[in-house]
Amino acid sequence: MSEAWLDAQARARIETPAVVVDLDRVDANIARMAAFMAERGVALRPHAKTHKSLEFGRRQLAAGAVGLTVATIGEAEVFVDGGIDDLFVAYPLLVAGRKAERLRELAERSTLAVGVDSAEGAAAIAAAVRGASRRPRILVEIDSGGRRTGLAPDAAGELARRCRDMGLDVAGVFSHAGHGYAGPDLRPAAADDEVAALTVAAESLRAEGIEPVVVSAGSTPTAMLSARGAVTEERPGTYVFSDGIQATLAGEPLDGVALVVAATVVSPGAGRGFVIDAGAKILAKDVAPYLVGHGTVLGWDAHVGRVNDHHGVIELPDGAPRPAIGEMVFVVPNHVCPVVNLVDEYLVTRQGRVVDRWPVDARGRNS
Amino acid sequence: MSEAWLDAQARARIETPAVVVDLDRVDANIARMAAFMAERGVALRPHAKTHKSLEFGRRQLAAGAVGLTVATIGEAEVFVDGGIDDLFVAYPLLVAGRKAERLRELAERSTLAVGVDSAEGAAAIAAAVRGASRRPRILVEIDSGGRRTGLAPDAAGELARRCRDMGLDVAGVFSHAGHGYAGPDLRPAAADDEVAALTVAAESLRAEGIEPVVVSAGSTPTAMLSARGAVTEERPGTYVFSDGIQATLAGEPLDGVALVVAATVVSPGAGRGFVIDAGAKILAKDVAPYLVGHGTVLGWDAHVGRVNDHHGVIELPDGAPRPAIGEMVFVVPNHVCPVVNLVDEYLVTRQGRVVDRWPVDARGRNS
Repeated sequence: MSEAWLDAQARARIETPAVVVDLDRVDANIARMAAFMAERGVALRPHAKTHKSLEFGRRQLAAGAVGLTVATIGEAEVFVDGGIDDLFVAYPLLVAGRKAERLRELAERSTLAVGVDSAEGAAAIAAAVRGASRRPRILVEIDSGGRRTGLAPDAAGELARRCRDMGLDVAGVFSHAGHGYAGPDLRPAAADDEVAALTVAAESLRAEGIEPVVVSAGSTPTAMLSARGAVTEERPGTYVFSDGIQATLAGEPLDGVALVVAATVVSPGAGRGFVIDAGAKILAKDVAPYLVGHGTVLGWDAHVGRVNDHHGVIELPDGAPRPAIGEMVFVVPNHVCPVVNLVDEYLVTRQGRVVDRWPVDARGRNS
Repeated sequence: MSEAWLDAQARARIETPAVVVDLDRVDANIARMAAFMAERGVALRPHAKTHKSLEFGRRQLAAGAVGLTVATIGEAEVFVDGGIDDLFVAYPLLVAGRKAERLRELAERSTLAVGVDSAEGAAAIAAAVRGASRRPRILVEIDSGGRRTGLAPDAAGELARRCRDMGLDVAGVFSHAGHGYAGPDLRPAAADDEVAALTVAAESLRAEGIEPVVVSAGSTPTAMLSARGAVTEERPGTYVFSDGIQATLAGEPLDGVALVVAATVVSPGAGRGFVIDAGAKILAKDVAPYLVGHGTVLGWDAHVGRVNDHHGVIELPDGAPRPAIGEMVFVVPNHVCPVVNLVDEYLVTRQGRVVDRWPVDARGRNS
């Protein structure tokens, strides 16, 4: 199956480690999610922090997405500069100083929504955009069980009212069911939590006389499970490529993932196995209790058991087959988002051939 | 102690999350290691994969370092372009195609040494540099107990002889005692292992009639403990900044670390505590069995217990003091190398004031 990733000619031309994307698989992932949401009548606003790329973002919009989701003002700036200007910053922004100025500038040249989960965050946004020619809509973040950011669902209305009193336009509520990542069997319950919490939150806005136009749920594991009831919008991100975590949660084979790290076997290793030139500086260090190690080596029934910055160490039982030193292998990363953020470009392939190189436009835009 | 990091004026001007360096502390770290090695008569060749920066590299050379260590050809290219041209790529290179051409070009314009731990790697290097105007010296990598890359120490001579037979100039041997990171009490034994293994390896070269001019040990936890006997060179990297792992291994206080991540409290959090805008995309995800969580929040007796891409979640006991929403906090990362690799610039400070911004010149040079 490694052959399917890059043919001999492509292998001879690329330098490892590198991030390789199969564009046919990406297009299929984009089409599948878009069709599902269209059939449900739910808006799709993919989270672009996964790909950080104008090219992939444009493909999502062409397939029917209403806009993109981002995590930071810096990511939003990159997409607006590239002509994608309907954006939701799904993060409880707390702006000050230069960042407040940037928010105002961004709002004036885009169709922007931003998150809040505190009166302090709302007040800072209100101060930043006062008198601006265009101002961002507000979505109140609620916690649906992920225990990260967000208010209790029934507290959304009160914060929405305070936002309105500050002169802000509240468009609705949003949540991220992070607990859907906890294990393969937990996705349906997390999706139920998300729908239930968003329903309560939407009602609490109505109780304050604020109609929630947007009721937004977000996460790839739950996207197809929570697109119902009060939910008007879904924000999955990782589905565009998938990765070890997503495929395992969904019960799908790893060799269907659309993005791999190409690596070279550089050493026989001091233990039993081999060592590749893909370590934490391209695979990152995300782990999950339902995955083994730091990535799966396709075609070799092997996992990257240990990573240092530039080394991936694979241990094997005695006598197990292994690639030759100098051979290229392909690793499915556990979590694709940090992998993309560690490189400057994608090698874009179709049917084993490199057809293009696309920049990771918003790489490192942390603020 | 947070006040010591950035004064009020600097806080108002920076955007979080950001990597902040205290230059006085860095200079003290550089001076201390240089003085120690000078007193021992051991050459210092700092590993630049930590800082990836011409400015910090120049300071190390000015303090007496004989050159720099890097992990990839790409990192070496950046330093040579910047005028730092005595470099050791401490990695078992396996070059092919364009990467082989780059190695040849690099060798022709620098004083270069590279690692090998296999005949395949040596043959590829020999082919790449055949007939070049200048060629890299070879250091044979041996395993001193880290169980990553490198040959058994007594096998170094045979590979050195094969390298020589391929026309390569073997300068010596090197090792990395990665097992010195396993715990605070394990550093002396790891250093002993390193010295013992390098001594055996050097002898095995002599048995083949090859005098090892360079016998190079490398890791910050063991650097000051293994600079003795057969060892002629040390390659510590992380000492330039230190981090949670290094300080804990050395029994030093965390508030003496020279690099922190400045973050803003963005949310009261859905649990008990608070949430900051520094997550895995700036703190990375390195953990250690002797550390709590993903970083330490200075001045608040708190650890970043959980990170997502852009969220750091801090949980606190009921009633524990906590920073206000919107307040800036400073986090000591567990492992500084991946943190630096996630940002484009350092905010360089002295006595709480930002005095410069330096690029992370070799960020992302993975190949």
